[in-house]
Amino acid sequence: MDIFGRCQSYTVSQEARSAGLYPYFIPFEGHDATVAQTVDGDILMCGSNNYLGLTSDPRVQAAAQAAIEEYGTSRTGSRLLNGNTPLHDELEHELADFLGMPAALVFPTGYQANVGTIASLLSRHDVVILDREAHASVYDGCGMSRAKTRRFAHNDMDDLERQLAASPSDAGRLVVVDGVYSMAGDLCPLTEVVRLCRQYGARLLVDDAHGIGVLADGRGTSAHFGVTDQVDLVTVTFSKSLASIGGAVLGPENVIEYLRHHARSLIFSAAAPPASLAAAYAALRILKAEPWLCRQAVENASYVRRELMALDYDPIPNETPIVSVRLDGVQETLLAWRSLLDRGVYVNAVIPPAASPRLRASFSTTHTPEQLKRVVAAFAEVGDLMPLEDQ
Amino acid sequence: MDIFGRCQSYTVSQEARSAGLYPYFIPFEGHDATVAQTVDGDILMCGSNNYLGLTSDPRVQAAAQAAIEEYGTSRTGSRLLNGNTPLHDELEHELADFLGMPAALVFPTGYQANVGTIASLLSRHDVVILDREAHASVYDGCGMSRAKTRRFAHNDMDDLERQLAASPSDAGRLVVVDGVYSMAGDLCPLTEVVRLCRQYGARLLVDDAHGIGVLADGRGTSAHFGVTDQVDLVTVTFSKSLASIGGAVLGPENVIEYLRHHARSLIFSAAAPPASLAAAYAALRILKAEPWLCRQAVENASYVRRELMALDYDPIPNETPIVSVRLDGVQETLLAWRSLLDRGVYVNAVIPPAASPRLRASFSTTHTPEQLKRVVAAFAEVGDLMPLEDQ
Repeated sequence: MDIFGRCQSYTVSQEARSAGLYPYFIPFEGHDATVAQTVDGDILMCGSNNYLGLTSDPRVQAAAQAAIEEYGTSRTGSRLLNGNTPLHDELEHELADFLGMPAALVFPTGYQANVGTIASLLSRHDVVILDREAHASVYDGCGMSRAKTRRFAHNDMDDLERQLAASPSDAGRLVVVDGVYSMAGDLCPLTEVVRLCRQYGARLLVDDAHGIGVLADGRGTSAHFGVTDQVDLVTVTFSKSLASIGGAVLGPENVIEYLRHHARSLIFSAAAPPASLAAAYAALRILKAEPWLCRQAVENASYVRRELMALDYDPIPNETPIVSVRLDGVQETLLAWRSLLDRGVYVNAVIPPAASPRLRASFSTTHTPEQLKRVVAAFAEVGDLMPLEDQ
Repeated sequence: MDIFGRCQSYTVSQEARSAGLYPYFIPFEGHDATVAQTVDGDILMCGSNNYLGLTSDPRVQAAAQAAIEEYGTSRTGSRLLNGNTPLHDELEHELADFLGMPAALVFPTGYQANVGTIASLLSRHDVVILDREAHASVYDGCGMSRAKTRRFAHNDMDDLERQLAASPSDAGRLVVVDGVYSMAGDLCPLTEVVRLCRQYGARLLVDDAHGIGVLADGRGTSAHFGVTDQVDLVTVTFSKSLASIGGAVLGPENVIEYLRHHARSLIFSAAAPPASLAAAYAALRILKAEPWLCRQAVENASYVRRELMALDYDPIPNETPIVSVRLDGVQETLLAWRSLLDRGVYVNAVIPPAASPRLRASFSTTHTPEQLKRVVAAFAEVGDLMPLEDQ
């Protein structure tokens, strides 16, 4: 058997390209959060996680550029050894302070924050119980950990309780949820999750990649539900609202100290570069000073959601910048995606195995009312062209 | 059982701090490849993977800063969806061209390149055979893949052959080695590895993180041994010679196309940011134009190695910028490390489980002869203070 066999027989992507329905890896140019250039012309960017539009904020850009001047383009080593800088430590303090958690640990990516945290806290004798729709990096951390993995139906508290009750009480138990689920933009019912974790003596990790910078004036899902002091661990990423790349885990001092010396994805990977740290730090300071930014992103999405409902679309209700419209099958999703793009509007085409077929749009503080109207108009035209689900 | 139990009982790091022998997470300032600032004063940096010193090259810094201007501080999304840019595609073409491989795929970190490549190519029915000293990210990828993992003794070709012979010939088989082993700086005997892989019908992945930019005028270990066309896959990182962060896998077009759509650490992680891509691209262009840079880094290390031998140290012989001196135990290593730091010389203190106790120094093209003499002088003083191994 040749491990390349499955590569040689993989033709799906090429077939989609031939059909003009390949929605991936488009090279986008430009630095604006709402408009990008492609080889086919300008598009309205409605498929980014740039919720606050801060990647092109002059203060964020200047901070990143200054960090390159002061620290170089990379530290070319692990934080454990030569790669650590005061920028890492300052960002950790600022994150812990802003999120109201005791301590933080910065990783080079959000993916590695989840993988490293989960894999190093759990052994094969432990049980991890995760929401079925938890982020892929949560799954990958569970897979690497060798812990027994149980899944509960998405946001189904009865099923969570069943899984808790069914797992041996003498095993270490960790429950993992997303604060905001990326594909639908819906929130985890965190108050109830916290209660069940307490009741069953399980620890709780909340991946709040899409909650930070969005909910509770940016403080995220735990703050939104007022349960910050009852959540054991929070992971965040800098590649959404914080206009950068990187991630962090926040939690008790002794857990962070343990992870600092055991998380393999931290120790055996190069430190996040100065420009990325400085950008995230600058974005965090702006977010603290200007909490209206979060509310505007949510409001922009709410406007589009209301207008789409008026057009007989059925967007998933939520209170985030994510507008998720389920469609009836892969082909319809790709056709709708393509039709929107032909009208200059880019959204994410989501198909299995990522999630059930849908268009996922996401909005930024910096989308203008005129741009939002253009998005709605494009959806109106596309809706006229094709049957919508349940019609 | 509480999964935080092992965190609460973890005290090693605090004990090392109390003893003044804590060698980790020092916050280093400054952008020079050879001198860094700490709260205790300036040190000579001899523990970085900045082999070519390009992190502070004005051309590399300017390219990174310009990319921030043109593309913003982040693309806030996966390459699969909104995060791709022409910078990603150009860097892939340039890497493939420089390394003489058909195609390349850029990941946000080198860690994720290894993890994503290995985990998505292998299933539980496959066998992966790796050198015992392969990089941690290789191990993590194997762990995530669920393939049966076999290890062979470091650089032991008889043991590799035993493991190949013992694995079922109807299973898919992948052999994974490092081109240059980070801790000792020694090379993999790639000609022999290639021969055995051919003989047993196994595919071969070479992690060349420390070979790229160093061996064969920067083209790495495969080129050094003249076997580029017989190596199936190469992974590289940008966080050593290429003055950045990020990684890539190189291989046949159809394998790269498969990985592009299946590697979870690529698809479910934010795209490498513009500044990091531009820095790596600029460094690669400089490396192509000025191959003497690689030779100078190796020559600087050779000088130090020769001088240390004259001082009765026993550095591991190699032809790389890495000078690795095994010592007799953890305590001795930490004391020697501390004594060097007190003399203004930072090297890596390596202790188990990372590797057997040793000091690992690494040198850059930009270390001056005067700096190298100061390093040797510091080792001379430290050697007078303490017994060396085998003395």
